[in-house]
Amino acid sequence: MAADRFARSKAVFERAARVIPGGIYGTKSPGFLLPGKFPYYIESASGSRITDADGNVFVDYLCGFGSQIVGYGNPAVERAGSERSARGDLLNQPSPLMADLAERLVSRIRGMDWTVFAKNGTDATTLAVSLARVHTGKRVVIAAEGAYHGAANWCSSNLFPELAPDRADVALFRYNDLEGLEALFRRHRGNVACVILTPHHHPAFRPQVLPDPELYPTVRRLCQAEDALFVMDDIRDGFRLHPEGSHVRFGAEPDLVCVAKALANGWPLAALLGTGRVRSAADSFFITGTYWMSGAPMAAALACLDEMERMGGVGRMEALGTALREGLESAGREAGFSARVSGPAAIPYLTFDEDPDLYLNQRFCGAMADRGFFLHPHHNWFVSLAHSEADIAATVEAAREVFVEMSGER
Amino acid sequence: MAADRFARSKAVFERAARVIPGGIYGTKSPGFLLPGKFPYYIESASGSRITDADGNVFVDYLCGFGSQIVGYGNPAVERAGSERSARGDLLNQPSPLMADLAERLVSRIRGMDWTVFAKNGTDATTLAVSLARVHTGKRVVIAAEGAYHGAANWCSSNLFPELAPDRADVALFRYNDLEGLEALFRRHRGNVACVILTPHHHPAFRPQVLPDPELYPTVRRLCQAEDALFVMDDIRDGFRLHPEGSHVRFGAEPDLVCVAKALANGWPLAALLGTGRVRSAADSFFITGTYWMSGAPMAAALACLDEMERMGGVGRMEALGTALREGLESAGREAGFSARVSGPAAIPYLTFDEDPDLYLNQRFCGAMADRGFFLHPHHNWFVSLAHSEADIAATVEAAREVFVEMSGER
Repeated sequence: MAADRFARSKAVFERAARVIPGGIYGTKSPGFLLPGKFPYYIESASGSRITDADGNVFVDYLCGFGSQIVGYGNPAVERAGSERSARGDLLNQPSPLMADLAERLVSRIRGMDWTVFAKNGTDATTLAVSLARVHTGKRVVIAAEGAYHGAANWCSSNLFPELAPDRADVALFRYNDLEGLEALFRRHRGNVACVILTPHHHPAFRPQVLPDPELYPTVRRLCQAEDALFVMDDIRDGFRLHPEGSHVRFGAEPDLVCVAKALANGWPLAALLGTGRVRSAADSFFITGTYWMSGAPMAAALACLDEMERMGGVGRMEALGTALREGLESAGREAGFSARVSGPAAIPYLTFDEDPDLYLNQRFCGAMADRGFFLHPHHNWFVSLAHSEADIAATVEAAREVFVEMSGER
Repeated sequence: MAADRFARSKAVFERAARVIPGGIYGTKSPGFLLPGKFPYYIESASGSRITDADGNVFVDYLCGFGSQIVGYGNPAVERAGSERSARGDLLNQPSPLMADLAERLVSRIRGMDWTVFAKNGTDATTLAVSLARVHTGKRVVIAAEGAYHGAANWCSSNLFPELAPDRADVALFRYNDLEGLEALFRRHRGNVACVILTPHHHPAFRPQVLPDPELYPTVRRLCQAEDALFVMDDIRDGFRLHPEGSHVRFGAEPDLVCVAKALANGWPLAALLGTGRVRSAADSFFITGTYWMSGAPMAAALACLDEMERMGGVGRMEALGTALREGLESAGREAGFSARVSGPAAIPYLTFDEDPDLYLNQRFCGAMADRGFFLHPHHNWFVSLAHSEADIAATVEAAREVFVEMSGER
């Protein structure tokens, strides 16, 4: 039975495997870790729901890896993007709405004075690091072990020896290890260009970690003493933790902020924002990409920023996420599990304290997928403004069944 | 009068300059070199025509830096992209049409066995170079001076000393200098990962250069002896020189081919294609980007590949470009100028033999812009399938007037 449920996904995969390395982008489907539990191909989506290639429907908590914040196919966002696309998306030069969006972002993201647009989130983080190097005249970048800043060679998991020079000047500390961070600054004194962090720590395969209350004050003190910059990579968290940027939630004061994903509800757009002191480096930098000036994602972003507020914004996602966390943890507890939901309420991730190897986690997510809930077993989840209270209640109800079933297996 | 013509462009620029470094992406508007001649912002576009922020209409020969091949707002392409966007663009995983497009490209681009999708053209060239390094176990990349392979630090014009390590293993030869190329291979013997070239040479500010008939045979011989790969960066030329890839036009045999731009008529999509021998490196590489699996640009690409053929394909662009070249050169000659159109017929660029400093070129392009023809003074042009014979004739007619006017000024 389970085999038939993904018959078309598998047929497409077999075709794709002939002409695409890996047949699909390997890490994108939890189906590779949990065969028979998740689809490989998705056909369509609407609101909080995705429909796979075989017609199976899931309440989705991956949200296009965080990109969907006002719901798949949000009518206001789609209307704005498509209208701009029909009148001209990629032109030789930007359309005037680039100025509208730049003004909007600079006035919204606290502490930022300017912005430039790009396409991938990685474009923004890579540009941030390059500008920090040019601004400071130094090379070393300090980041947290297991943090995700994109798929460029300086930060990706492609640890081939031939690519080692690309990441030679990147130094890693254990997240929240303040002494380790201080030690890195000592070791690289006079050579540190910047620290780059995500607002909270969301490594794959591990519980999420909130910043130690002393982390950002320490980063600030060390950067000031070293004359280094602080880059906030807000690509995954952005617009779910605080309307003015996730750094505000945690009292951090970055020099550069990267956003993407939820910015335009998944229309391809990234932005790098910065303070006045970094502007001369940005002015002197050749920043370009054929698709970076395209208007449709910018129109979608303007509509998305409005929709976020109209639909209840951070407060509503916080409330939905809190209900999900409390419901899941309590249902787990009742069945005898220490199921713990880590991370900010709107960006939850469940692990079992008794199972660091994620076996129970995979069992749980697989059984939830059987019931039509898309919960990624090794990547954090996202709540969106398209989730309803009824979605959350149904998710908790299904989880209760699954926990009881799992409890019977022990 | 000329000042008023771009009043809104200038007003938007003044706003943008406060919040965007450079106020616009600097190199994107020829207006920075020729004040008062070109707009800074474009409002809309249709077919072969763009309308700027002030309502001025231009017959456009920049085509979104080569992206527009079947015309701005091509109905079939827009329909396919928008329909896919409305049903779900960025999903957690690809839609089945990724397999359709992969099969289509692999069967179309000659000699290629697999493909992966990305967003920016730079994503494809950077991935190509990384895979070549991983495949060969070597680091050195050989490229041509003045060639454009994207805006990543390894290949961009950001020559800041702090970024020098990013381009440390890139060695440059003078285009078509076969002895210089051989010398580079000798100097780096045992360390060359790949040669990367554009099908023809299109440096900014210079006449374009077609490949010496011995260039590709020499590249092939040297790469074979060194066990290095040959990467064809077909991003700018792609689909205008040969329907199966520009390498076929010139008899080149690349191991990796990069395409983007015209692939989806400007919808954001890039693809890297490769031969079977490079597949194991691609299989082992973590290739990802949040937006890379999005379906709308893939649907647009499938429609665009059909439209290209339906509208007459390479043959028609070749004919239009030949008429433009012959018309411009003959009109120039009649007025006493050695105006020469270089490059392939569908990717023309005009310079004056008597004026290597481009003063006459700027004068010419500025006067053409006054008359409603968008010809970039320092970047090659593009013919598209949306250009009509009447567009070409009107362009030549206007050029005739301009040459006569310029002749009177001497």
